[in-house]
Amino acid sequence: MNRISIVGVGLIGGSIGIDARKMGLAKEVVGVVRRAESIDECIKAGAVDKATLDIKEGVEKADMIILATPISIMEKIAEEIVKYTGSETIVIDVASVKGELVKKIEGILGTRYVGTHPMAGAEKKGVSDAKSGLFYGATCIITPTEKTRPKCLKDVKEFWEKLRAKIIVLPPCEHDKVVGMISHLPHLVAASMVNIISDEQRALSCIGPGFKDSTRIAGSPPELWQEICEWNKEEILASIDKFQKEFAGVRNLIETSNWAGLLEKLRKAREIRGKL
Amino acid sequence: MNRISIVGVGLIGGSIGIDARKMGLAKEVVGVVRRAESIDECIKAGAVDKATLDIKEGVEKADMIILATPISIMEKIAEEIVKYTGSETIVIDVASVKGELVKKIEGILGTRYVGTHPMAGAEKKGVSDAKSGLFYGATCIITPTEKTRPKCLKDVKEFWEKLRAKIIVLPPCEHDKVVGMISHLPHLVAASMVNIISDEQRALSCIGPGFKDSTRIAGSPPELWQEICEWNKEEILASIDKFQKEFAGVRNLIETSNWAGLLEKLRKAREIRGKL
Repeated sequence: MNRISIVGVGLIGGSIGIDARKMGLAKEVVGVVRRAESIDECIKAGAVDKATLDIKEGVEKADMIILATPISIMEKIAEEIVKYTGSETIVIDVASVKGELVKKIEGILGTRYVGTHPMAGAEKKGVSDAKSGLFYGATCIITPTEKTRPKCLKDVKEFWEKLRAKIIVLPPCEHDKVVGMISHLPHLVAASMVNIISDEQRALSCIGPGFKDSTRIAGSPPELWQEICEWNKEEILASIDKFQKEFAGVRNLIETSNWAGLLEKLRKAREIRGKL
Repeated sequence: MNRISIVGVGLIGGSIGIDARKMGLAKEVVGVVRRAESIDECIKAGAVDKATLDIKEGVEKADMIILATPISIMEKIAEEIVKYTGSETIVIDVASVKGELVKKIEGILGTRYVGTHPMAGAEKKGVSDAKSGLFYGATCIITPTEKTRPKCLKDVKEFWEKLRAKIIVLPPCEHDKVVGMISHLPHLVAASMVNIISDEQRALSCIGPGFKDSTRIAGSPPELWQEICEWNKEEILASIDKFQKEFAGVRNLIETSNWAGLLEKLRKAREIRGKL
């Protein structure tokens, strides 16, 4: 490729840029940013060869464009991209939600768009945290639709493989269901566990590695997660309901002193957890 | 000290033994075990100088006895100990629950008993996992009562300080409330999150470090945790209720698309989590 353009050079966009440059995946990596200060920041981080505030300048002539902005502005950016690029330019996004978003972006960009979700780096945000190897061994869910051009899907898969991600292909809706359960639900649970001890000084002073690990993801950027909840509302509600039903069952086993039943639940969990 | 006796040489008992020997905290560390095979195992692990199946032989002449068996048999062992040792022998336990247990053991052993709870190693079990340094920097909650002999409390504090634990002193009931929230609740939550994806093959294949960290503690020994729930039932139910109330509130914010309210919850959680 001659040029990769990254729109939104934060943790994810920046880490893609660093490795794309390091691995020589394109002759040039260009960043499109919103704030003037970000231009220097992302060059200093080694994330791009050059950066611009001008979307037209940033995306025209790109062979591949990576949307790595907040979810809420991706649609608007796609509308810009379609003005300045032709159908040969592949566009991917890296958002944590897919269903509705894929429909919208595909509606604008058509068959050359491929949704992707690299599952990495949830706790950080800025380009200063971007690093080489962020995607090594990380799962990247790719969500083509029946409209996706096969050649584009192939190129996008190869791109993430070069960044050493483990590729899983799922339909957009299935993606949202899966991440609702394994990512969005645990995040909300962690935040709630943290919040209930917020005024418990004694509890706070006793916290050890168990609680810290359980709630690590509650340290993630709130704006990002609020957006995720907004865009994946239905699947998140479904995951919450599934969890609450299971958890209420566990509560009932304890309340009724059904220790054999509780032991069975704990054994099952340990067995499954051991296989992960 | 001349002799430390450890009754129940598993992960915790064994790790105490390894460091007590390494640091020369007593001239001799003796293990009391239930199975003949364990004698060789705990000697091989470096946890004790010698081990025996005979409780009398194991505990008599000890300056300090450490109860590190399953919770359910501690009372019975305390009744043996009182037969073979005098009031100068300090006895501590390392159980994850305190309230009722402390009452029972103190009722048998009197003022020389001090409850302690080193918060470490929750996922492992056997002496083969025991290791030096398990308690370095770990929180150890010590739970004296108004009956506890001050000299015994002082010696027990010093003992855990030598093992480099961070000491926190709490009344037994307060201990149970605190660990109900920061340890027992997260455990049950983790087990439930694992169990709801047990039959979701796609979700299982997508799991990354976020879910793994959130649910790490679900890999802990089920029998131990069933016992903990049995002994700390009331405080665990109270923690579950507090969590469920908070979590239902979060669900409601999402259902009603109250994104500003959700953002506030996530911000608060991130702020608190960042301070841990």
